[in-house]
Amino acid sequence: MGEFSTADHRYMARAIQLAKRGLYTTDPNPRVGCVIVRFDSDGDARIVGEGYHVRAGEPHAEIHALQAAGNAAQGATAYVTLEPCSHTGRTGPCAVALTKAGVRRVVIAMQDPNPQVSGGGIAHLASAGIDVQVGLLEADARALNPGFISRMVRRRPFVRLKMAMSLDGRTAMGSGESQWITGPQARTQVQRLRARSSAILSGVESLIMDDSRLTLRADQLALGNADDITQRQPLRVILDSRLRLPLAAACLREPGRTLIITTDQHSEEKRHRLAQAGAEIHVLPAEGGRIALADMLRWLADNEQVNELLVETGATLAGALLEAGLVDEMQLFVAPTLLGGEARPLFSLPGMTQMADQKRLTILESRTVGNDWWIIAAPHAD
Amino acid sequence: MGEFSTADHRYMARAIQLAKRGLYTTDPNPRVGCVIVRFDSDGDARIVGEGYHVRAGEPHAEIHALQAAGNAAQGATAYVTLEPCSHTGRTGPCAVALTKAGVRRVVIAMQDPNPQVSGGGIAHLASAGIDVQVGLLEADARALNPGFISRMVRRRPFVRLKMAMSLDGRTAMGSGESQWITGPQARTQVQRLRARSSAILSGVESLIMDDSRLTLRADQLALGNADDITQRQPLRVILDSRLRLPLAAACLREPGRTLIITTDQHSEEKRHRLAQAGAEIHVLPAEGGRIALADMLRWLADNEQVNELLVETGATLAGALLEAGLVDEMQLFVAPTLLGGEARPLFSLPGMTQMADQKRLTILESRTVGNDWWIIAAPHAD
Repeated sequence: MGEFSTADHRYMARAIQLAKRGLYTTDPNPRVGCVIVRFDSDGDARIVGEGYHVRAGEPHAEIHALQAAGNAAQGATAYVTLEPCSHTGRTGPCAVALTKAGVRRVVIAMQDPNPQVSGGGIAHLASAGIDVQVGLLEADARALNPGFISRMVRRRPFVRLKMAMSLDGRTAMGSGESQWITGPQARTQVQRLRARSSAILSGVESLIMDDSRLTLRADQLALGNADDITQRQPLRVILDSRLRLPLAAACLREPGRTLIITTDQHSEEKRHRLAQAGAEIHVLPAEGGRIALADMLRWLADNEQVNELLVETGATLAGALLEAGLVDEMQLFVAPTLLGGEARPLFSLPGMTQMADQKRLTILESRTVGNDWWIIAAPHAD
Repeated sequence: MGEFSTADHRYMARAIQLAKRGLYTTDPNPRVGCVIVRFDSDGDARIVGEGYHVRAGEPHAEIHALQAAGNAAQGATAYVTLEPCSHTGRTGPCAVALTKAGVRRVVIAMQDPNPQVSGGGIAHLASAGIDVQVGLLEADARALNPGFISRMVRRRPFVRLKMAMSLDGRTAMGSGESQWITGPQARTQVQRLRARSSAILSGVESLIMDDSRLTLRADQLALGNADDITQRQPLRVILDSRLRLPLAAACLREPGRTLIITTDQHSEEKRHRLAQAGAEIHVLPAEGGRIALADMLRWLADNEQVNELLVETGATLAGALLEAGLVDEMQLFVAPTLLGGEARPLFSLPGMTQMADQKRLTILESRTVGNDWWIIAAPHAD
């Protein structure tokens, strides 16, 4: 792994910063940044090329940076947040491009998490005589792509559970009425969570109750490139074991895809009508009459390339995911209001009867957003 | 009200700081501080006497400060956080003492809130030819004595509702098990809230469930003068309309008084046995079979001189107080854990069915305490 200089840290930090520009657009590819730097013999350094991956189908970060550097790449050092690819993708293998450009040294934040290709790019560079170092600011680089890494390593998405709640832990009145518990600033943050996600998951019960559209809205994102971002709508995934989604559901009329996951193999008629209304339908085997949640996640990773999955749903599905240990991160928006003991709970966790059963959380971040709190937490591994 | 100099602000701030030393001991008297300052002809100033009220029955702040100043009080300025008394209390009227000591000017943060005596001390001083100014740092001075002011002005205590809860708004498991949701640092803060309170209020249901002692424990206060503070145990008030408190309740065996408020006028036998077990019993007229909460608070203010009342109870009584608009401040200790939808709610608010009914809160303060959050909030006036 070797030692890294202060300059190395500075340029890798810059590459990570660049990678973040692709936060809302690279899906299903990872966010990657690259900086090419020339070090003079007297130790002075200057950036000769920078790049980041913008969108699947467009060039990788290294290609953008090499293009910007031109001949100046010769003898330079490349900083890249993810191991350069060695397979021939849509834009040609980056490891080959770096080699051809005459780069002398490549510093890599993290290896490719895909066990099938991991190390291939490094091996290619090293065998071409390039000085390769790996592991600089690795934690930061990993944080860029929790979903991509999860999909590659665990064959399931990184599951983020978002909930908007009152201070007494309620998500809606008993009637289901819930608009709006939190303020517009919190809702903008939810839009951005949607924007970075490959897909949004909801239970049919919530859809029937709220008739949510589950879409990105450019005006609510409050980002300069909002129109660009909303060109890709996250896949809407609805768990609906008995195909109860109304044909008039608002989400079926929105841009982007709506995928219903069901265990119902028989209602040919309803499937046909839902398909006509705009839904795609996938049947998964049932497990005790319900959709097997772990299988569903694996299917989404393998077949839909879902990296980050945002769950926006009610107490039952949220509780079941939590109980099954399938929630990686909770995003809680807490409004300074009380809805009372008759209002809807945050989680249904029917198995919990003793304090020893409680689900302790690790708080990763907590801050205010408008008049609300925004708490990011991770469930403890049991 | 006049203009106040920078020096005036400095010395009044010092007087408020001194008053705070009595936070846990002056009850049922207010916390008051006093500073006596000599200003030289060239504008230099020095403190010649300081004092604060320590304990009911002991001298007032002004007397301590005048004793410390001795002859130096002659021609000096006195800063006092509350209007000096003009009635002959156990230590003689402070307004007379200031006059006799030859003080030239008196700066007062706030008038006496007792409408019966308010302005009397000021009038006495002014009629003796002393320069009197009122209103410096008044908000800070008022914050010293929310309970005393409430009792004097509204004839009811300042009601503080304390709740320890999980992040999903639960105070206990369905079984009632609740020890411990929050950590030791939060529990120390609860001990300090008890210590500043004249009384602690709980519903009999909570007592039956938890068998709480509702006492101050010197070792948990984590304060230098803890032994001093615990000489006074806050009055324990238990709402028990049908006299269901078990004779073996732990709180009956603790130092300090336990007062049962009931609407039961008939169970002579149970009253007698509870009295023998150490309880005092007061009967209030029922209102729809229940204790009338506003009447109960007035009774506590008038008959028990309750300034600050700490409510430590379950969802039903907490919800009823909130619904009746009788909660002045909420002290919420929130632990990073989930207890699930089957666990006990924070508030029972049965009348709430629509979002329009929600109880918005104003957050006064929010910080971390150990691994928990500590949120201080005020319900909005409806």
